[in-house]
Amino acid sequence: MRQFIVIGHDAPTTDEFSLDDLAGGAGRLDVLCRCVSSGFFLSHAIREDVRLFLVLSDEFTIRFEGSELRRLNPDERSTAALVRAALTAREEAIGHMEVESTPGVFVSRRGFVDLLDSVAGTVIQLHEDGTPLPESEVPENPTFVLSDHHDFTEREAELLSERADARLSVGPEALHANHAITVVHNWLDTDGFANY
Amino acid sequence: MRQFIVIGHDAPTTDEFSLDDLAGGAGRLDVLCRCVSSGFFLSHAIREDVRLFLVLSDEFTIRFEGSELRRLNPDERSTAALVRAALTAREEAIGHMEVESTPGVFVSRRGFVDLLDSVAGTVIQLHEDGTPLPESEVPENPTFVLSDHHDFTEREAELLSERADARLSVGPEALHANHAITVVHNWLDTDGFANY
Repeated sequence: MRQFIVIGHDAPTTDEFSLDDLAGGAGRLDVLCRCVSSGFFLSHAIREDVRLFLVLSDEFTIRFEGSELRRLNPDERSTAALVRAALTAREEAIGHMEVESTPGVFVSRRGFVDLLDSVAGTVIQLHEDGTPLPESEVPENPTFVLSDHHDFTEREAELLSERADARLSVGPEALHANHAITVVHNWLDTDGFANY
Repeated sequence: MRQFIVIGHDAPTTDEFSLDDLAGGAGRLDVLCRCVSSGFFLSHAIREDVRLFLVLSDEFTIRFEGSELRRLNPDERSTAALVRAALTAREEAIGHMEVESTPGVFVSRRGFVDLLDSVAGTVIQLHEDGTPLPESEVPENPTFVLSDHHDFTEREAELLSERADARLSVGPEALHANHAITVVHNWLDTDGFANY
């Protein structure tokens, strides 16, 4: 199982946004939608062994479960519609209990700390100053933590320095989060670039 | 210079499409917009050494020139707006002459054959059955040719088997074109995964 946590600092917490304005009125939901797409899509299939969490402004967490996902399309707008449906269902989410809004998409009232408490496996922070991917062992059941277009906040960075098992870098260039996810998948798909 | 040619088989050839329906009424323009985004974006910069061509239904070619690009944003919708502006300017494009529609974006009446005739450098077809990236030399001035969500047509495949200098594979999984571009950039950024 490959898990990704994407922290959205500039993300909607209500369903009152227009699908026509994802990079404006919806904060930067476009960034998060691209991460979902990179997380799950192969050319002719969905990666069923992936679980991806979007943390929305440290208030809600949306879980996308690869093995159960339906109605996911690669374009930003349709992914944003799934996020909006999850935010419509947020009213029913009590405590940390999840509510399934569409098949394979779950919403809960959880911020980053609570989410991190709940994940198992190796926690890996993706970071420009981390160990280059080829110099790292390929982890089993990794959980990669990424930030959106903003840096991790001081609090998130502190938490990760305590809790992350490793810090890895996806190359000499600083990449967008969705591109970093694609590189990580490629690294895992090829057993660390060894069985390409 | 890194060049990419993305062949859009299901792409608009007029500006009469809605930005609200990129994955429907505009053919699959969403696929091509994601390729543009993967082609150019770094976290805090645009890759100025990149030139990317979109071939629209073998009728028009739009050239995005990294060193001159302005107004490019990573979301699909705003990239589609640049494509639409280019298609509005298509009326002024006579023969193979290009017209600049917005800074760094040029449109011409050219299909794939004419475009391929005009590019210099090493032509590389990205293909599932190609040589794995790590087993290939890192080319200077490569031009990567990719197809959208459809396979290359028989005619395109024939042309590429004659004209391409190499066929490379981006891993054991068949990837979306935009994800393949990201992997290729990572490979080039790291001198073939060697200087990660």
